[in-house]
This record gives sequence, C-alpha cells and structure tokens, in this order.
Amino acid sequence: MKSHPPENETDPPISASAARRTQARIELRAKILAAAAELFIARGYEGLSMRQLGERIGYSPATIYLHFANKDALLLALLSDGYNELGRRLAAVAAATHDPLERIAAVGRAYVAFGREQPMHYQLMFMRRADVLRERLAERSERVDAFQVLQLTVTQAQAAGVLQPGDTLAISLTLWATVHGMVGLFLVGPPLPEAQIQVTIETTIAGILYGLAKEGLR
Amino acid sequence: MKSHPPENETDPPISASAARRTQARIELRAKILAAAAELFIARGYEGLSMRQLGERIGYSPATIYLHFANKDALLLALLSDGYNELGRRLAAVAAATHDPLERIAAVGRAYVAFGREQPMHYQLMFMRRADVLRERLAERSERVDAFQVLQLTVTQAQAAGVLQPGDTLAISLTLWATVHGMVGLFLVGPPLPEAQIQVTIETTIAGILYGLAKEGLR
Repeated sequence: MKSHPPENETDPPISASAARRTQARIELRAKILAAAAELFIARGYEGLSMRQLGERIGYSPATIYLHFANKDALLLALLSDGYNELGRRLAAVAAATHDPLERIAAVGRAYVAFGREQPMHYQLMFMRRADVLRERLAERSERVDAFQVLQLTVTQAQAAGVLQPGDTLAISLTLWATVHGMVGLFLVGPPLPEAQIQVTIETTIAGILYGLAKEGLR
Repeated sequence: MKSHPPENETDPPISASAARRTQARIELRAKILAAAAELFIARGYEGLSMRQLGERIGYSPATIYLHFANKDALLLALLSDGYNELGRRLAAVAAATHDPLERIAAVGRAYVAFGREQPMHYQLMFMRRADVLRERLAERSERVDAFQVLQLTVTQAQAAGVLQPGDTLAISLTLWATVHGMVGLFLVGPPLPEAQIQVTIETTIAGILYGLAKEGLR
C-alpha cells in the first residue's frame, strides 16, 4: 500500500455502468464457486473439469478461466472464503459475549450454525482431505483463524478460573470435535426434526462445558 | 433352511482344493471392496466405474461382476460390512463392561478406535451421503445397530441413576456427535501426535460424561 499515491479525502464517484460490471463479476464469481463446491463434493478433486463446470452454469470454460486460472485456484478460493467467513463470525460472536463460559457456548453455536448454513463449504473445509492446499492457505497469515478464536476463548475461561486448568490444546480440540461432530451428523447423518437438532445442540454444548468447567472432572 | 435335508451330525470333510478356492474368493472379495472404498471416497459414487476398479486391482471387469452385480452392490456390501462390524464391536464392549458410566466410555473409545482403524469404511458410512442405500440397509433387521447399542447404554445408565434422566435420544445423539467429531478430526483434520490424540479422546469422553452425569447440569 505504501507505494500507492495518497488517496483523496473522498472517493471519486463510480459510474453506474462500472458499478454494474463489478456487481456482475462478483455474482458470476459466486455462481462459479457454488457450482464448483457441489462438483468437488460429488466427484472429488480429480473428477471436476472446467468444461463440466462451465456446462453446469451455462458459461464457456474460457469465461471461467477469466476468474480462476485452474482447479487449484477454485478450491483455494472456496476454502479461503470459507475459513475467512467462519473466522470472522466466531471472532464477532466471541467479542460480543462477556461471560467466559457463555462465550465458548456462543462460539460453539455459531460454529454449528455456519456448518448448517454453508454445507458445501463446510464439507470441503472439514470433511475432505485437501492437505496441500490447506498448507498454502496456512501461509496467508492475515486470515482470522477459527481455531485460534476457539483457543483464545478457552485460555480466557481458564484465566477467569471457570474452566479447568491444564492442556489448553486438548480442551480446544475437545470443543472443536464436539461441535464438528454435530455438524457432521446434521449434514450427513440420519434426518432429524429441527426441534431435535436444537435440543441436541444445547444438550451437547451444555454437557461438554459443564464437564470441562472448573468444578468438573478432578 | 427348512426345505434342506437334515444335516449330518458331523460336517463332511472339505477337500483341500475347495478350501483354497473359498479362501481365494474371500480374499478377492476383500481386495475388490478395499479398492472400491478408496475410489468411492476419491471420486464419489458417480466417478467410480467397474472398468477403472478392475484396472486398479489387476482384474477384468468380468471378474468383478462375478462378485458384485453393479456399483450399488459394491457400496451396499461396504456399508453393510462396516455397520455390522461396528455394531458387533460396540455390543461386545458394552457386554464386557459392568459399570454403567464406564460402559458408555468404553463404547465411545471402541467407536473412535473403529473409525481410526477403518478410515475408508468410516468415511463412507458416516461422512458421505448415500441415503437411498442406507434405507435399503435399514430394512435388514438382522444387523446389530451401533446406535441402538449406544442408546441402550444410555438407558441403562439412566436407569442406574448415574446419568441425568430425560431425553434419551438427545443424550445419545450428543454422545454420537462427540465421538463422531473426534474421528472426523483425526481422519481429515490437521495431523496430531498420537499422544495428543489420546489425551483428546480421554478429555472429551470424560468431559461429556461428567457433564451428562446425574450430578451434572441442573
């Protein structure tokens, strides 16, 4: 940013046609990504072709290549969007909740809600192997890491004396596994009525938090 | 069976060559299923072809068709084998453990162990959609249902007064989600040292059981 000339106090007006073009680009990008997510999940990384993807959404492969150079770029964009969105949401919920135990519960509920609202992203992010790409993502240090948000809430609750002291990583993994397991069952397991899902979410989060609370285990 | 003639008191001796043929058939069936599981997971149901599967293990499609009529039969055999094996294991562990809370913990550990030992089966069973086939499986009433084993351990612990009373299904789903989440993370999530995995398993199972115990929540 430093090499750019200083910006004006107010941004210059954007012409209506430029705004429309930008909007169309954003919409097409989202459309390509949504179709790619479905195909990645149905057919795996190897099974997806740019031609097939184009047929699915009614555009030529050439149009898709204007937005994404190859399959890796597509998958990377999907994962990057997903991890960023999840990290932002959890950070916002954590920042908005004062009580340290309730903060963990709120982060847990937000995690489950994200998985249910973004099932395709969630499955790609956490229910498929994509090790190489994940390593490349990890190098992008600017992103808000959802797991770091969770670990921070655990550290804060331990510091406040309401969560058992000790292995912060194990407790954070336990909490992650707990909410991840619910999302997995809700997305792929037997169909359940919404009321049963809600009771299960509350029973699970309250159960694990009570079990891990300071008065809990040993 | 009733239309068969009564069997001899002792089975007739099986010739050595017949025993070898049976053994070879069993081994080839296992080989086909193992390769099919990998391909289903990598490429999805649509992406697997019998030709491709044959190439993978060095047999003609015709040989595979001698064992499995089509892709559905392959997937059904994989799922059926997996659910039966898991159900048998959990039932055996439950029967061998006396204390009602420790019984739930033991069933949970056995579930996680199954998922880690049979990662391909596990992913097909619980991390992919295969709704139609699962319905056909559910009709085979002879199988030991792993979830029924878990629900029974919950009912027993509630009856013994060591687990909170109330919604047995919600508590069973909570326990399932808890162990399922761990398997999912261990199979697809970030690599963890074995010691960290073991600590996470014990922290999670102890945490959720303590939280759901009678002295637990409210």
